[in-house]
Amino acid sequence: MRGEFDQIQQIKDLIGTPGPNVEVGIGDDAAVLASAVPRMLLCSDALLEGVHFDLAFMTPRELGHKAIAVTLSDIAAMNGHPLYLLVTLALPADVDENFVSEFYVGAVGLARLFKTEIVGGDLTASKNGIFIDITAVGSCMRPILRSGARVGDLIAVSGQPGVSAAALAALKARGRENVSSSLLQPHILPIPRFDLLPALNQAIDLCTSMIDISDGLSNEILHIAKASNVGVEIQTDLLPLHPEAVKEAGGRTQAIDLALSGGEDYELLITIAPQFENSLPDDFTIIGRVVDRAVGCSLVHHDGSRSTLVATGYNHFKPDPK
Amino acid sequence: MRGEFDQIQQIKDLIGTPGPNVEVGIGDDAAVLASAVPRMLLCSDALLEGVHFDLAFMTPRELGHKAIAVTLSDIAAMNGHPLYLLVTLALPADVDENFVSEFYVGAVGLARLFKTEIVGGDLTASKNGIFIDITAVGSCMRPILRSGARVGDLIAVSGQPGVSAAALAALKARGRENVSSSLLQPHILPIPRFDLLPALNQAIDLCTSMIDISDGLSNEILHIAKASNVGVEIQTDLLPLHPEAVKEAGGRTQAIDLALSGGEDYELLITIAPQFENSLPDDFTIIGRVVDRAVGCSLVHHDGSRSTLVATGYNHFKPDPK
Repeated sequence: MRGEFDQIQQIKDLIGTPGPNVEVGIGDDAAVLASAVPRMLLCSDALLEGVHFDLAFMTPRELGHKAIAVTLSDIAAMNGHPLYLLVTLALPADVDENFVSEFYVGAVGLARLFKTEIVGGDLTASKNGIFIDITAVGSCMRPILRSGARVGDLIAVSGQPGVSAAALAALKARGRENVSSSLLQPHILPIPRFDLLPALNQAIDLCTSMIDISDGLSNEILHIAKASNVGVEIQTDLLPLHPEAVKEAGGRTQAIDLALSGGEDYELLITIAPQFENSLPDDFTIIGRVVDRAVGCSLVHHDGSRSTLVATGYNHFKPDPK
Repeated sequence: MRGEFDQIQQIKDLIGTPGPNVEVGIGDDAAVLASAVPRMLLCSDALLEGVHFDLAFMTPRELGHKAIAVTLSDIAAMNGHPLYLLVTLALPADVDENFVSEFYVGAVGLARLFKTEIVGGDLTASKNGIFIDITAVGSCMRPILRSGARVGDLIAVSGQPGVSAAALAALKARGRENVSSSLLQPHILPIPRFDLLPALNQAIDLCTSMIDISDGLSNEILHIAKASNVGVEIQTDLLPLHPEAVKEAGGRTQAIDLALSGGEDYELLITIAPQFENSLPDDFTIIGRVVDRAVGCSLVHHDGSRSTLVATGYNHFKPDPK
């Protein structure tokens, strides 16, 4: 590893000149930021080698992009606007000497896409594997919480849930060179869905709850149900499936399971008042509706049969306290 | 491990009712915070099992206290006031079932001491050892940076540097039951030095730079020298040594080495204009002075001889980018 001062200078160079609201960025005990936002959002997300990522399947640069995307997705899921990032890296002694610079190239690239600045963090040693924790600060005029869903609302999801899990399965089965880029992109280089927020803000009173589906669709639907004290009914036939995910899963039924249980889809799940349906952006697909809590949370299958919606999310332990 | 919802509820219970400025705390994608502070401080600090702590020497509750203290010390070192915390924990499957609750009891205890609220974080799985990352948000009227030291200033340090390293050496050599509590407390249950800030703010124009000495006194002095573009001269005879650290180190000379190189002292290092010396709080000891950059950074020993001040800090790799 390089010396401390060299490494900090290198990171400063990669991050570039701080913006006008960053009074002190990297290089002191804490960042000093002008704060004129009425409401501040604050969240963090950790990624661990061997649990959340495998460098056999992605480059350090892609990992830097993904680590930032994962955290910014939580800011998007609050209807927020990202402002600042802290990057904490703990690295084993045998890490590739270009890891830090490559990671930062990817991280800075995605951060810049959303005009967000890396203003600090920590860089330390690990005995076992790479640990990453990214903190994001955002501003927010009108947060959309998990707790606002009302009986009669429609449930919609952006993108094609399950595609990231299908990509991971394909990577494990065949290696990267044999997986198509349309399947890989959402898994390796996800883009948080800030692009969908302007349309939602056009009808903000009709968008009653929102969450990102990073821990698996079934998990996240149940989060909204619990926080909003309602039941849900999901029509499995309505789930938008990626054709390659269907192929990868070995059929439509299996792909539906993957869509419900596979994690790492950095898409948005929303509940909306029915009158918003016709002006919802095309990226969203209606997949069900909010029902009374007494009805419970259920899946309605192709043949009309019902089953209980259970939390089959992301199969590594991740009781996320956020 | 408990189920996700149970664990989140348990953490919420331990944290208690959110204050009036926390619109949304734990339980959504991000915390929503009223933000009326003109300047915001933002920092994070990671602690890894086997690198920064060993549960053979401290309880999970003490670890929770220490993790918060370590991060808040950076807010203190900026002349800040802590407001909010995010707690990220990655835990191996075999962690003690009470680890999370015990950790939070310790964390919340220290946070409350400084009226600071835990508003979110992440809780996830680790394959190897416990990983902790704490993020702090603070407010600040007048930050004291590393970069303000001027030629002619005096250099002062609070507490007794080296005491934490002496405690760790004693713990390794003899086990906890055979180490005195006066040596243990600064290592196991450090208290960030917010108590010293009011006195510094009485003469804020005379306090030219500040840093905490968590990574070792020599390292931190060199950080100030580099950031301020100055040289320093430290009188080793002036270093305030803990009597038990002297005993533990095997003599005064060895204790001086420990004071310069040992890390994890959550004390403050400041540079001040000479006219502030007489009104400096008793907790500070003058240890040297700021000289021209061309003179370099040196130690002046008991016999009048000089040596170059080198970075002999914390001996695990810790190129901290803050």
